Amino acid sequence: MSLIIVGSVAFDTIETPYGRREKIVGGSGTYCSLSASFFTQPEIVAVVGEDFPKETIEFFKNRRIDIRGLEIRPGKTFHWEARYGDDPNQRSTIKTELNVFQDFKPLLPPDYRQADIVFLANIDPDLQDDILAQVQKPKLVAMDTMNLWINTKPDSLLKVLEKVNIYFANDEEVKMLTKETNLIKAGNKILERGPSLVVIKKGEHGALVLGEDFVFGVLAYPCKEVVDPTGAGDSFAGGFLGYLDKVRAINDKNEIRKASVYGSVLASYVIEDFGIERFKSLTQQDVEDRFSDFKNLVSF
Amino acid sequence: MSLIIVGSVAFDTIETPYGRREKIVGGSGTYCSLSASFFTQPEIVAVVGEDFPKETIEFFKNRRIDIRGLEIRPGKTFHWEARYGDDPNQRSTIKTELNVFQDFKPLLPPDYRQADIVFLANIDPDLQDDILAQVQKPKLVAMDTMNLWINTKPDSLLKVLEKVNIYFANDEEVKMLTKETNLIKAGNKILERGPSLVVIKKGEHGALVLGEDFVFGVLAYPCKEVVDPTGAGDSFAGGFLGYLDKVRAINDKNEIRKASVYGSVLASYVIEDFGIERFKSLTQQDVEDRFSDFKNLVSF
Repeated sequence: MSLIIVGSVAFDTIETPYGRREKIVGGSGTYCSLSASFFTQPEIVAVVGEDFPKETIEFFKNRRIDIRGLEIRPGKTFHWEARYGDDPNQRSTIKTELNVFQDFKPLLPPDYRQADIVFLANIDPDLQDDILAQVQKPKLVAMDTMNLWINTKPDSLLKVLEKVNIYFANDEEVKMLTKETNLIKAGNKILERGPSLVVIKKGEHGALVLGEDFVFGVLAYPCKEVVDPTGAGDSFAGGFLGYLDKVRAINDKNEIRKASVYGSVLASYVIEDFGIERFKSLTQQDVEDRFSDFKNLVSF
Repeated sequence: MSLIIVGSVAFDTIETPYGRREKIVGGSGTYCSLSASFFTQPEIVAVVGEDFPKETIEFFKNRRIDIRGLEIRPGKTFHWEARYGDDPNQRSTIKTELNVFQDFKPLLPPDYRQADIVFLANIDPDLQDDILAQVQKPKLVAMDTMNLWINTKPDSLLKVLEKVNIYFANDEEVKMLTKETNLIKAGNKILERGPSLVVIKKGEHGALVLGEDFVFGVLAYPCKEVVDPTGAGDSFAGGFLGYLDKVRAINDKNEIRKASVYGSVLASYVIEDFGIERFKSLTQQDVEDRFSDFKNLVSF
């Protein structure tokens, strides 16, 4: 099958209790594609400026990410700055410079329009809708979003939500969108809106995957050192969807269980170092080893 | 084997988004004993006043709880009042009237001194220490505590901690006691203090069980209606220790995994209704059914 990932490829300036990094490579499309690349050859759709490092593009290629949809435009790459406190779930955005991302209106390469799986990472919901319309007959559409769009463009967001099969969100977003404090009730409300599956990411507490007559819970791997939590959610989605693409599964509940665990595995690795550093040394064997560790973690 | 449970048997006035109940039966010893009674015949150690309802004592007996250690004293039963917000993890204590609990200095009945497993539920750590000294050769000692004692009697608390095998605590308490924000590091610091196992309860996010070279994660059952969260943690401990007593296991890691799941099963039931109401209709089959549900919830 094939998987396209639409999201941001960006520079991030990140401060955590473990230190500060200026303008390192980040972005939802980056984390998601790198994670998916452990299972399949994802096709990325994003825009960067001329200042984006060629080494990173080479790294994407080496990881067999299809970069024909990665546009390089005159100008500067999207730059985001954030700070985390002692609690990795608490993040403050310091600055957002959209730069070339401001006018991002991608036209999908012809091949990409045949994609089986489409992931619309966190971007403006109107843009998510435009891009989705360009894909001919996707078998599976997934989306992510953020509190900004829930607050500023709820109608656009709900319009996209009706068209997707899987909605990835964190617990705060699900509660905010549905005005429900109980996660199970909140998840069920999302299911009534269209998706057949909602993946509620809970940071250090793992994730809950809800469908009609289906509940699966996956833990976060117990990490002693959360160096930089950035990208954990996108890596979860990348591992999840990359695995489904690899095993050519859309609705198989057993595969969805495994996909959830692979999502948590990838998320657990990325937070061990700043930005995408950890992906540079991560091996297929590491991924399989931790997948096995997850079995030990929850089996009884 | 045999299990003694030392804790409070009390009146609780509880307000949650589901309603308010005045002076219903509660207390750590109550919840813990009722939960344990699904696996073994726990021996309770507590004090109540003359106002404590005889029907509840009959109910304890019917559930085969040994009440020879339940002292009835002239005066009023311990009364605690609390209010929960929309988030079941957020609780405010409104009032604490110690009443007969003020001078609680139990002398264990002779049989009780032979107990194999001792659970020191949340009470003054000096009292925990006094009681523990009365038990001759316990095979397994477990304790719980609360933020009050961490703040007011840290030295007494640490002295008891050195003598116990299992420390039950919620995530906030573990972080407070160790001054660590990362739960795994915090848990490991507790292990250095003496216990061989620390059970970190995380409310709706389940629990983490940590030992040397051992990590087990158990989810909370996904409940749509959390009517009254009171007693969830004590019910967890009761299910956990009751099961270990039943299977005569102290160190067996597979049994500890199962004990953790039974703990979560009992906790998930008790919060479905106010106070101890749910225990009145709960059957052995209900417990086994939900234990099976937990397998479906996490297996992959």
